[in-house]
Amino acid sequence: MHAAAANDTLLKDALEEIQSDVDRGFDGFLPVPDDQRARLVEAMRYAAIGGGKRLRPLLVSATAKLFQVPRATALRAGIAVEAIHVYSLIHDDLPCMDDDALRHGKPTLHKAFDEATAVLAGDSLHALAFEILSSPNMTGDPFTRAELVAALAKASGHEGMAGGQIMDMVAEEESEDFDLPTITRLQQLKTGALLGASVELGAILGRVAPEGRTHLHGYARDIGLAFQIADDLLDIEGDEELAGKALRKDADAGKATFLSLLGPERAREQARMLVDQAIAHLSSYGDEADLLRAIARYIVERDR
Amino acid sequence: MHAAAANDTLLKDALEEIQSDVDRGFDGFLPVPDDQRARLVEAMRYAAIGGGKRLRPLLVSATAKLFQVPRATALRAGIAVEAIHVYSLIHDDLPCMDDDALRHGKPTLHKAFDEATAVLAGDSLHALAFEILSSPNMTGDPFTRAELVAALAKASGHEGMAGGQIMDMVAEEESEDFDLPTITRLQQLKTGALLGASVELGAILGRVAPEGRTHLHGYARDIGLAFQIADDLLDIEGDEELAGKALRKDADAGKATFLSLLGPERAREQARMLVDQAIAHLSSYGDEADLLRAIARYIVERDR
Repeated sequence: MHAAAANDTLLKDALEEIQSDVDRGFDGFLPVPDDQRARLVEAMRYAAIGGGKRLRPLLVSATAKLFQVPRATALRAGIAVEAIHVYSLIHDDLPCMDDDALRHGKPTLHKAFDEATAVLAGDSLHALAFEILSSPNMTGDPFTRAELVAALAKASGHEGMAGGQIMDMVAEEESEDFDLPTITRLQQLKTGALLGASVELGAILGRVAPEGRTHLHGYARDIGLAFQIADDLLDIEGDEELAGKALRKDADAGKATFLSLLGPERAREQARMLVDQAIAHLSSYGDEADLLRAIARYIVERDR
Repeated sequence: MHAAAANDTLLKDALEEIQSDVDRGFDGFLPVPDDQRARLVEAMRYAAIGGGKRLRPLLVSATAKLFQVPRATALRAGIAVEAIHVYSLIHDDLPCMDDDALRHGKPTLHKAFDEATAVLAGDSLHALAFEILSSPNMTGDPFTRAELVAALAKASGHEGMAGGQIMDMVAEEESEDFDLPTITRLQQLKTGALLGASVELGAILGRVAPEGRTHLHGYARDIGLAFQIADDLLDIEGDEELAGKALRKDADAGKATFLSLLGPERAREQARMLVDQAIAHLSSYGDEADLLRAIARYIVERDR
C-alpha cells in the first residue's frame, strides 16, 4: 500500500476507535441516577455522547503512544479534555453567547432541554474533567495527576480558552482593532490552548520532562493555528449539513478572522505551511509519530 | 472575659481577617492583563473581591488549624473553594437561572457587565479553583494536591453542588414531590457539599486519613443543614438591605423548603439542635476547635 494511503487508513481507524471509546467512556462516567438529578445527567450525556470528531482525545492518545503509555490511561485523560471541550460548546451555544440552535446535527442542549439545565450541565462536565484527572483510577502516580490537572486548568481558564473566548467577543465589537498578530494570539488561546493541552497531557502521561516537550509544543502550536484557519475556511466554504451546525456567522457578523485578513488563497497557503511545519517538529520521531503526522494533515483536509 | 463573649471576639476577628486575606488573595491571583482579556479578568475581580462572608475559606482555615497547617497554605485552599462558590453564584444569578439583579448589595455580574461575560467569568473562576489547588505553590506534596482537587471536583459537580441545583430547579416545578427527606438530600448537595468540602480540604491539608475524618464529616453535615435552615428563615424574616440581595423569592415561587415543610418554629428548633449536634462532634478536640464551634453558632445566629 502507498504510504499516504496507509496513513489515511491509520487515521480513519484511529478516529473510529477513539469515537467509540470516548462514547463508551462518557457512558461509564455518567450513569443516570434514580432521583431528581436525572435531568442533569441526561443533559450531560446528550451533549457528551455521540457526535464530535474527538480530535482532542485522539491527540492525547497519539502523543501518549509515543511514550508507551497504556491506551486506557491516555483515554481517560482524553475524555477529561473532551469534557472541557463539550462544556465550552454548551456554554458557547447559549443564547447570550453565540445563540446556536444546531450542534453535531441535532438541537443544541439548551434547545433540547432548557437554558438553566444547559448552564448546569456545562458546569458539571467542567467539574467532571478534574474529577477524572485527579482520581487514583487515572494513574497511580499523584505527581502526574496533579500535573495533568494543572495543565488542563491553565489551558481552559482565563489565561487560556476562556481568555480567547472573551477576545473573540471583543473582536466582534471592535473588529478594526484586530490585526493579524492579535487574531493569532486570540486563536492560540481560544482553540490552540486546549489542543495544546491535549498534546501536553500525552507528554505528561509519558513522563516527559518540561524541557523535553519543546518539539511537541511546536507541533501543537502549529496544528492549533492550522485548525483555526481550516475552521474559518469551512465556515465560508463548508456544507452546513455535514458540519451539523450553522455556518457563515463570522462573515455575517463582520468579525475579523484569519480569512477576513488574509483572503482565502493566502489563508489556505498559510494552513498548508503550518501543517508542514508541524510535521517537521516531529522529525526526531520515527513511525510511532505517523498518527500525529496524519492528524496534522487531517486538520486542514477535513470537510467538517 | 465571659467564655461566650471571648468566642464572639474570636469569631469576629477571624471573619475580619479571612475577609481581608481572601480579597488580597484574589487580587494576587487575578492581575488585569493589558489586552482584550482585561474585560474578563475585571469581571472575575468584580465578582470575587469584596462582599461575601467568606464562610468557606474560614471553615478550611479553622479546620486546618486543628492540625497545625500553615495559615498561608489553608488560605490558598480556602480561596479555591471560594472561587467555586463565587462562580456558582454568578451562574445562579443569570436570567435563565434565578434572574437576580443584586448580590452583596451591588448589581449582579451580568447586570454590571453582560450575560456572556458573566458565563465566561464563572467558567474562569471554576478553572482558577483547580489551577490554585494543583499548583506546586499550593503544597509541595503532590498526593495532597491531587486529593484536594478530587474532593473539590466531586463536591462541586453533578454528584454534589450542581446536582443539588438541578434538584432545586425541579423542586420549583414539582414541589408536591418534595418531602422532608428529599429536601434534606437536595440541601445536603446544594449547599452542604461545598461546606463539607471546606472542612474536608482542611483535613486533607492536615493529612488526616479518611477514616479519621468521621467526626469532622458529622460536624460539616450538621452545619450544612443548619446553614440552609437559617437561610430559609432569613429569606422570610431577613432584611433585604443587610442581605444585599432579593429575599422572599422561594415563598413567592411556592417552592418546597425546610420552612414550608416544618414551619418557622420547628425549623428554628431543628437548626438549634443541629448546631448542638455539630458541636458535639468536636468533643475530642480542645480549645483549638473553639473557632469551629463559634462558626457553628454563627451559622444560625447571623443576620445575613
